[in-house]
Amino acid sequence: MSNGARKQEMLPVSGNDEGLYGLTPELIRAVRGTLSNGNETRLRDLVAPLHAADLADLIERLRGEERHHFVAMAGALVGGEVLAFIEDGVREVIVEKLDARDVAEAISDLDTDDAVAVLEDLDPPQQQKILNALPDVSERHGVAESLNYPEDSAGRLMQREFIHLPAFWSVGQTIDFMRESDDLPDDFYEIFVINSRQEPIGTVPLNRLLRTRRPVRLRDIMNEDLHIIPANIDREEVGFLFEQYDLISAPVIGSSGRQIGVITVDDVVDVAREEAEEDMFRLSGVPDADIYRVAFKTAGGRFVWLLVNLATAILASLVIYQFEGTIDQMVALAVLMPIVASMGGNAGTQTLTVAVRAIATKDLTVDTIRQVLGKETIVGLLNGVVFAVLTGSVAATWYGNPLLGFVVGGAMIINMLVAGMFGLIIPVVLWRLRVDPATAAGVLLTTVTDVIGFLAFLGLAGMFLV
Amino acid sequence: MSNGARKQEMLPVSGNDEGLYGLTPELIRAVRGTLSNGNETRLRDLVAPLHAADLADLIERLRGEERHHFVAMAGALVGGEVLAFIEDGVREVIVEKLDARDVAEAISDLDTDDAVAVLEDLDPPQQQKILNALPDVSERHGVAESLNYPEDSAGRLMQREFIHLPAFWSVGQTIDFMRESDDLPDDFYEIFVINSRQEPIGTVPLNRLLRTRRPVRLRDIMNEDLHIIPANIDREEVGFLFEQYDLISAPVIGSSGRQIGVITVDDVVDVAREEAEEDMFRLSGVPDADIYRVAFKTAGGRFVWLLVNLATAILASLVIYQFEGTIDQMVALAVLMPIVASMGGNAGTQTLTVAVRAIATKDLTVDTIRQVLGKETIVGLLNGVVFAVLTGSVAATWYGNPLLGFVVGGAMIINMLVAGMFGLIIPVVLWRLRVDPATAAGVLLTTVTDVIGFLAFLGLAGMFLV
Repeated sequence: MSNGARKQEMLPVSGNDEGLYGLTPELIRAVRGTLSNGNETRLRDLVAPLHAADLADLIERLRGEERHHFVAMAGALVGGEVLAFIEDGVREVIVEKLDARDVAEAISDLDTDDAVAVLEDLDPPQQQKILNALPDVSERHGVAESLNYPEDSAGRLMQREFIHLPAFWSVGQTIDFMRESDDLPDDFYEIFVINSRQEPIGTVPLNRLLRTRRPVRLRDIMNEDLHIIPANIDREEVGFLFEQYDLISAPVIGSSGRQIGVITVDDVVDVAREEAEEDMFRLSGVPDADIYRVAFKTAGGRFVWLLVNLATAILASLVIYQFEGTIDQMVALAVLMPIVASMGGNAGTQTLTVAVRAIATKDLTVDTIRQVLGKETIVGLLNGVVFAVLTGSVAATWYGNPLLGFVVGGAMIINMLVAGMFGLIIPVVLWRLRVDPATAAGVLLTTVTDVIGFLAFLGLAGMFLV
Repeated sequence: MSNGARKQEMLPVSGNDEGLYGLTPELIRAVRGTLSNGNETRLRDLVAPLHAADLADLIERLRGEERHHFVAMAGALVGGEVLAFIEDGVREVIVEKLDARDVAEAISDLDTDDAVAVLEDLDPPQQQKILNALPDVSERHGVAESLNYPEDSAGRLMQREFIHLPAFWSVGQTIDFMRESDDLPDDFYEIFVINSRQEPIGTVPLNRLLRTRRPVRLRDIMNEDLHIIPANIDREEVGFLFEQYDLISAPVIGSSGRQIGVITVDDVVDVAREEAEEDMFRLSGVPDADIYRVAFKTAGGRFVWLLVNLATAILASLVIYQFEGTIDQMVALAVLMPIVASMGGNAGTQTLTVAVRAIATKDLTVDTIRQVLGKETIVGLLNGVVFAVLTGSVAATWYGNPLLGFVVGGAMIINMLVAGMFGLIIPVVLWRLRVDPATAAGVLLTTVTDVIGFLAFLGLAGMFLV
């Protein structure tokens, strides 16, 4: 006990002294302690040195009750940055407990992209209340306009704070302008050069600005190889462009072609991870990263996918049902049939996963579909033959019945061939239909492999065995 | 036909005029045409305006034969940057066809991180040959040293080109130094401030340098909230830190504490996506993004996982085998048993996917395991009960046997409860054993849900039905 108390005194509060991640288990435990005994001063001492991102994580990790106490005791420490870092579901709960004016105050220091992130998932009335409370009119307009762009679009991701200058300005003028202006973005890495119609025509990385002598004109040092992002494209596309071209920031244009914002790479790091994760969740039938949701909501979110799966499982059972007579004559078929279905499901999922990601990273294109389909067919056939021999031998030996082995083997080849083909065809068709290739792809595929697996195996058995 | 030829003349070669992605299907087709008719000049005209990343993609998309021709006809256009952008498997093939001295020449313009990326997957003798051909001795040493760090470590990801200055330097001195030095990194966003032991003690973002007057000392404007990265940590950890703290670059230190390099965010965008993708592939049993591998190698790569799956499928069959007598008495059991197993597999995979990602993003920690386990148990129970009622009713109606419905329902509850628990327990145990939580987790889980599903259903049937 006294040991525990001493440990608490030596807490690594900044995170850098002990670990790379500021939010240690010891700190969380200490915070929980202060929340339950109401020691407000100690709580503030513990969390004040935390990075906003770590404080956001801390709030996410607290239980519902604890979060209430936290906001009551240390709500003043929850600034705009912390709000921007908190996960959607948890943020709603926190914002509800804070005064709309305080939230407006907190987010008024943020760049538009972060302000939008805080507001976009709130209920419309609450959103409006906070917007109205924003002290700066032009900021209010900017945030509202960004919120008008569709969810997950570049327009939501961009910040409206950026520096755009005409091409005839000199390096010296530019530097002086930046020294004198106090209305600059918090962080920026490039200056945008625009023409008279305010269209972006080049960028000047800050390091080039620093290395160039004062009289040189921006037009002579600007980078003309621009990657201009229309505000209405999907953020997945934005992530792709940043990754493809190693961008650090990119100009965003409205429908008129005028530059209206900038997207910086730090926002895109999250996008790249989240989009890959989204595919993964969709393939597994999870609606969202639901770790912070309560059990009841989590169960509800996962219910739909399970229901679809039940329907397809019943479909597969109906296939078996057609062969009840066959199974009745040879119960070994019931023992072996799940093997064929399971192998098809696995082989198909392998192809499916590769195809879904290849579509996202543009490695699979309209032009290469036929080529890849040919390959997957061969892969399915190759592994089908190998596993036909393996499984067939096992079955033949097990039941002392070579013919049974041949039936298992034949069904295996058919199912793995079909699995490989449909593992590609399903996501490609969904993609061409403009549906996310990962959605429902898994359940469609297992339906195919279960049905074909049972049908091929029991059908062949009906023909050759009983 | 003439229409096709005209279209070819108006090719969007730079990508910015028509689309956001420079590599259009039309361009690929045109390149293929020049490769087959040997029109070298036209080929160069087509690919010369491409961004290095797009040229790399183009080479990836060509078939084996075409790649040969491409290197023979336009190998001179494959510079260091292009090599750095090409995917591992394809790069090996290309580098093999080029002269070691040409490759050395090409990568000598690159920052160390990109040079390392080009070399790290080559055979050791080939690697050594290229290293030896590097013209600059200090670069040769730097690259070799980076290659000594483990694969996927921060040491491999960092570049050794960075600016580190003492804290007593003024802004003016710093700017003059940068204007006069011609040995600066290609791109940089921050200056690192070091102490007399060359340990990093702060950073100065370039925009702050630009905004500050010349006489001010670096120590007075530097950012002391450093996220220092030890060279031997895993790149997944690096990705986490960049995403968590919205870093743009971070100092990398060796075992002595001295700064030896810098990691920039553009390298991390790939890491974030690749690590999430890696989890996804591992869960599906795909060894790697194998879209560019030939069919034979792809089949081989996926074989191991399928073999493991066969073993576990046979294990599940052995369970059914124990109940052959029961099934023989009531063939309906064979029809219904896959439903119970399939629902457990799906429910478990949902939990598993969330758990694997939550471990990677540090949302699931040692402290919260018990809490999350409690939640997943409740989720499993909730959905278990719902689907027990649904499936039980279907089965009871189908076969006009209420007791059969109860047996299906009971087995469903048991299996979905177990699935939810093991969907969490399996990745957590793997993680605590310091194995990647995604590896083999899927196959372990389906083994559990198949075995428990069949055992519960057939066992209950044996007790109550026959």
